[in-house]
Amino acid sequence: MLFVTSKDNSNVKKAVKLKSSAKERRKSGLFLAEGLRICMDAVFSGAEIQTLFVTEKAMQKHGEDFALLEEKAKNVICVNENIFALMSDTQSPQGFLSVIKTLDKTNEFDTIKGDSKYLALDNVQDPSNLGTVLRSAEAFNVSGVILSCDCCDIYNPKVVRGSMGAVFRIPFIIKSSIKDFLNENPQINSYAAVVNSDAVSLTDVKFQTPCAIVVGNEGNGIKAETEKACQNKITIHMEGKAESLNASVAAAILMWEMMK
Amino acid sequence: MLFVTSKDNSNVKKAVKLKSSAKERRKSGLFLAEGLRICMDAVFSGAEIQTLFVTEKAMQKHGEDFALLEEKAKNVICVNENIFALMSDTQSPQGFLSVIKTLDKTNEFDTIKGDSKYLALDNVQDPSNLGTVLRSAEAFNVSGVILSCDCCDIYNPKVVRGSMGAVFRIPFIIKSSIKDFLNENPQINSYAAVVNSDAVSLTDVKFQTPCAIVVGNEGNGIKAETEKACQNKITIHMEGKAESLNASVAAAILMWEMMK
Repeated sequence: MLFVTSKDNSNVKKAVKLKSSAKERRKSGLFLAEGLRICMDAVFSGAEIQTLFVTEKAMQKHGEDFALLEEKAKNVICVNENIFALMSDTQSPQGFLSVIKTLDKTNEFDTIKGDSKYLALDNVQDPSNLGTVLRSAEAFNVSGVILSCDCCDIYNPKVVRGSMGAVFRIPFIIKSSIKDFLNENPQINSYAAVVNSDAVSLTDVKFQTPCAIVVGNEGNGIKAETEKACQNKITIHMEGKAESLNASVAAAILMWEMMK
Repeated sequence: MLFVTSKDNSNVKKAVKLKSSAKERRKSGLFLAEGLRICMDAVFSGAEIQTLFVTEKAMQKHGEDFALLEEKAKNVICVNENIFALMSDTQSPQGFLSVIKTLDKTNEFDTIKGDSKYLALDNVQDPSNLGTVLRSAEAFNVSGVILSCDCCDIYNPKVVRGSMGAVFRIPFIIKSSIKDFLNENPQINSYAAVVNSDAVSLTDVKFQTPCAIVVGNEGNGIKAETEKACQNKITIHMEGKAESLNASVAAAILMWEMMK
């Protein structure tokens, strides 16, 4: 274990960059997972921890968990609270932060099974929404999540944390576009979720598997080219003056009905 | 219209306080609504705008809407961007912010109708969750929302914004406890949402009206005394390693099924 007391240490500087820069995460193939529980989730799902940062206090408070994390991490660096705060994305840091190799789940999408049920996200932008969507997708046992490459970065610390570790466990794939994914997999029955009273009400939809529900951007919905590539249009019937649901709520309701 | 250029102006100082202090909001009976759309929502729902703060740029950009807001607001104060930022809770302020009298919807709960369907929130703490829950409650046409007084403040700027204006339109009431509300209204059939495999699965529940679903705190769920006061226990069946859903997602799924 290394003890680092300078914020100019190269490992610390790199972690600070990984926190805020999606470009840096892409370039290095690394991302951050913060919090004891999420670090443990990473270990249990077999993710590769390159560096574990801890504070002295955290080590003492969670000795047993720390011992396991220390065993699995390639490097362990102990820092003081001030340095930890630079790398942390939370208001009250717990003192555990891992630098992890980005996950490759591409092969989990090699075979589309007859009963597979997917969620496809078209340009979803809000990290809290994306994290919550992954958490719900895991809870409802969705086969996998497809993200268009213009979605917010799945390795954003807010996504990782908001997913409650689901990012480590759920199959996901990032594609150039949802249109391309659907064209490459013509056997998938596609259902575009739209806010349009002409679309089929979700309660009347009989999902034909394998299938994928497509959810769009928070403000603008699904791209025109994506909607065109979908075979079906479905909608969540709403009352009152509400014009739409929060994207993560809409995705959850859609998955709930698809998985029933 | 007043032009204010000092951050020490008493109106500005009061608004800054209202942004961050729930105590100040309670004491003064005032709260903030930020953004053009939410200010318009306030007007259309008949809320009383005590002071409207605008920037010059916002006035020019949205002349027509500003004219309407100006007509309805008791006072209008034009401030520069720097002063506006002090009162704002957003990263890119739009230049519209209203100081509004807190809403009294108590009488909407005087009569519990035979077909009423409520959502009760027991110590829900996260403002983003609460805002999203109100938005969903409106979209699904829930009869009203009951909040225990230890829930996060419904007039928190994040709640108001996250509700997309639903806070102005949906009936809500703040009670000392959910237990008290249920005891005072014994005709209401109560359904406690719990994470417990012994509870009835949501898909098997036949809701008897009038009814209320009770949703609890993000980390600890429903209080023991509240659960005891409920006649039924229901649960959202989950798969995989997910231990729970985000509170606003769980509330949405529960309301979706209740309102079907």
